[in-house]
Amino acid sequence: MRSSPRSFDFEADSSHAAAPPTAANGRLHVPERWAARRLLAALGDPPLRFILPNGVPVTSGAAPPVATLRMKQPGVLLGLLVNPGLHFGEAYTDGRLEIEGDLRRVLEILFHAPEARPGLGNDLARLRQGFARNSLRRARHDIESHYDLGNDFYALWLDPEMAYSCAYFPTQNASLEAAQLAKFEHVCRKLRLRRGERVVEAGCGWGSLALHMARHYGVTVTAFNISSEQIQWARDRARREGLAGQVEFVADDYRNLRGKYDAFVSVGMLEHVGRANYGSLGDVIDACLTCTGRGLLHSIGRSRPRPMNAWIGKRIFPGAYIPSLREMLLVIEPWGLCPLDVEDLRWHYVKTLEHWLERFEKHAELVAHRFDASFVRAWRLYLASSIAAFECGSVQLFQILFARPGYAGAWTRAEWYTPPADARRA
Amino acid sequence: MRSSPRSFDFEADSSHAAAPPTAANGRLHVPERWAARRLLAALGDPPLRFILPNGVPVTSGAAPPVATLRMKQPGVLLGLLVNPGLHFGEAYTDGRLEIEGDLRRVLEILFHAPEARPGLGNDLARLRQGFARNSLRRARHDIESHYDLGNDFYALWLDPEMAYSCAYFPTQNASLEAAQLAKFEHVCRKLRLRRGERVVEAGCGWGSLALHMARHYGVTVTAFNISSEQIQWARDRARREGLAGQVEFVADDYRNLRGKYDAFVSVGMLEHVGRANYGSLGDVIDACLTCTGRGLLHSIGRSRPRPMNAWIGKRIFPGAYIPSLREMLLVIEPWGLCPLDVEDLRWHYVKTLEHWLERFEKHAELVAHRFDASFVRAWRLYLASSIAAFECGSVQLFQILFARPGYAGAWTRAEWYTPPADARRA
Repeated sequence: MRSSPRSFDFEADSSHAAAPPTAANGRLHVPERWAARRLLAALGDPPLRFILPNGVPVTSGAAPPVATLRMKQPGVLLGLLVNPGLHFGEAYTDGRLEIEGDLRRVLEILFHAPEARPGLGNDLARLRQGFARNSLRRARHDIESHYDLGNDFYALWLDPEMAYSCAYFPTQNASLEAAQLAKFEHVCRKLRLRRGERVVEAGCGWGSLALHMARHYGVTVTAFNISSEQIQWARDRARREGLAGQVEFVADDYRNLRGKYDAFVSVGMLEHVGRANYGSLGDVIDACLTCTGRGLLHSIGRSRPRPMNAWIGKRIFPGAYIPSLREMLLVIEPWGLCPLDVEDLRWHYVKTLEHWLERFEKHAELVAHRFDASFVRAWRLYLASSIAAFECGSVQLFQILFARPGYAGAWTRAEWYTPPADARRA
Repeated sequence: MRSSPRSFDFEADSSHAAAPPTAANGRLHVPERWAARRLLAALGDPPLRFILPNGVPVTSGAAPPVATLRMKQPGVLLGLLVNPGLHFGEAYTDGRLEIEGDLRRVLEILFHAPEARPGLGNDLARLRQGFARNSLRRARHDIESHYDLGNDFYALWLDPEMAYSCAYFPTQNASLEAAQLAKFEHVCRKLRLRRGERVVEAGCGWGSLALHMARHYGVTVTAFNISSEQIQWARDRARREGLAGQVEFVADDYRNLRGKYDAFVSVGMLEHVGRANYGSLGDVIDACLTCTGRGLLHSIGRSRPRPMNAWIGKRIFPGAYIPSLREMLLVIEPWGLCPLDVEDLRWHYVKTLEHWLERFEKHAELVAHRFDASFVRAWRLYLASSIAAFECGSVQLFQILFARPGYAGAWTRAEWYTPPADARRA
């Protein structure tokens, strides 16, 4: 149905005309509908319906819509046209954009959209990220803004170990608790830890991996973290569990790490290091590893280099950068450290995030009470969009095992998949 | 013992003075000894003894020598000083340099030597390799010079499947025969081949992997190779084994590959592709894979970029280049193909080569009769130096599994290490 001959031949949605424009706004919505159709076209005509602030629905007409994006203020559409990566999150968070339908499904559709021509925004973001030096002071500020939201907040939806990184699900129906412990085991087996060895961990979170290594493998661990809330929690736990003599939690930046170690491990920190600092991280690793040392990097990665999503970079993880595998290898290749094993655990992160989102939603009211409604919406969007990003392959989770040339690792990886002797006896 | 006050303070070996210089050559050997000592110093004073053409022994004196390098002509020492990577092989091959002791041990010592400052030779080699376009015609010439030495020559020392690439030893004492079959299985499991799928293989050697896939996984395979001797052998075998309807052996370059496939596989070809052609290889892979396709690259690699050894590049594998893992990823990253798994099988190549060298030595007389003594020496050096290079970590063997973002692979890699159902029943 053409609403008017002056519609520039861009049609509004004709199949959902239950709320037709009134005569009063008839003149105003023509450019908005035109812009909304442009946006849909740029997204590859997805099965989504926009509802403009004046109540006019717009679809591409290509497929029946599976969800509705209701724009409650005129600026939302402009924001989505100019910088969708930033303004989708901004408008959703403050409630100017409502999703009617399954948020995750909407995000999956948007993530599968054809890649927009990299605009000036993207180029600037890439440039900024490429040169971001993440000074010690800046890094501390960025980390505290996310990780020091309160241990009790994270305790609401993480597992009891407070493992805030991709879990490893031996089977798809394993619990989150079991999968986080299995991740610790997977990392320890890859590193082939032996009693009495010295391990250094860069970015230890709440310390659960370090404590697991000490308890089950008899190693000593020096664990670094610049989040003061996390370190305090980890130290308390080590004391409570009688492991304080074996695990030292250091409230400092990994760049201040000194000494010699048999193994280096870093789970979920590289994302915060910044591409410009991979050389310094490599220097630190090279300086701290013995001549038969080995290490493991566990980090979100990409199949090819891309700038961070602008909203995630602004609101959730300031200073973060997600590298491609080639970029990650810049941490080890210049020092002649040999890559022994790379594993993509992308689907395990989908499942981890599903658990987190489900737990988070159970406590959404409590979170809203402690923070506010927009905080809940921001975190819901962050978790749901992360699920969608891993699911469509826009991001991956890489574990890279590497070693000095003089290290002789497992003969085959089969031993990583064999239950330990005590479990076999059970 | 100073042999003379005019020795410039560089001492000849004093502990092996059984063959002292005669008065007649007393004047000549001073600069040679000086040069030999310079060479030993550049190599980090290894436990090796040189014997100069005039019979004068030279060691660094730092450690008792474990082997002797006897130079039978004056030019040998000069060659080793100017371009050791080339002239060690040249002189050993034509007998101007004799090794008294364990060749492999000598090579390991030399490979562990401190890296020489990259000289002009290395820079030129790197430059040439970076731009080597390996045209279709050139590639055919290079491949034929190595792989068309005669199938009966390779049959002397390869396994019965004629698998001329790194085997996979489930246990260290597995036979070479078992380990080559295990390699085929390992590749097929990683690719999760399913009955009726279409596989394309680039660089299929004597065709044994393609035939294994067809026989055991019920797939159809189109296998490319530009070595005419190998293709003929493979076609004959396919006919003999009733697999000609399932496996098509194409005597052509991988760059002429057309059609759509569920899986791409290439074992031991990337070494011959040349870094400048990784983009074309990526183009071919991207064009041939379905939207849920996956692939596997199996290739010798390095922990960091280095030019080829000059002698190997000249005499054994003209046109070859051994990439670092970052360089290998240039084949897949620009196309957004996701790396799912990387495995380093460096120690498996040590073992494979040990088997090959042992079998080769058993038939050395036959080989010398068919070719000549210098051919035997060249191949002995090629196999022994490869063992030493893998052993000291100067080269690796990488298997890279990659896939379209839309491909859902194994939930965990545990299934690659579980015996198939029929084996479990047995």
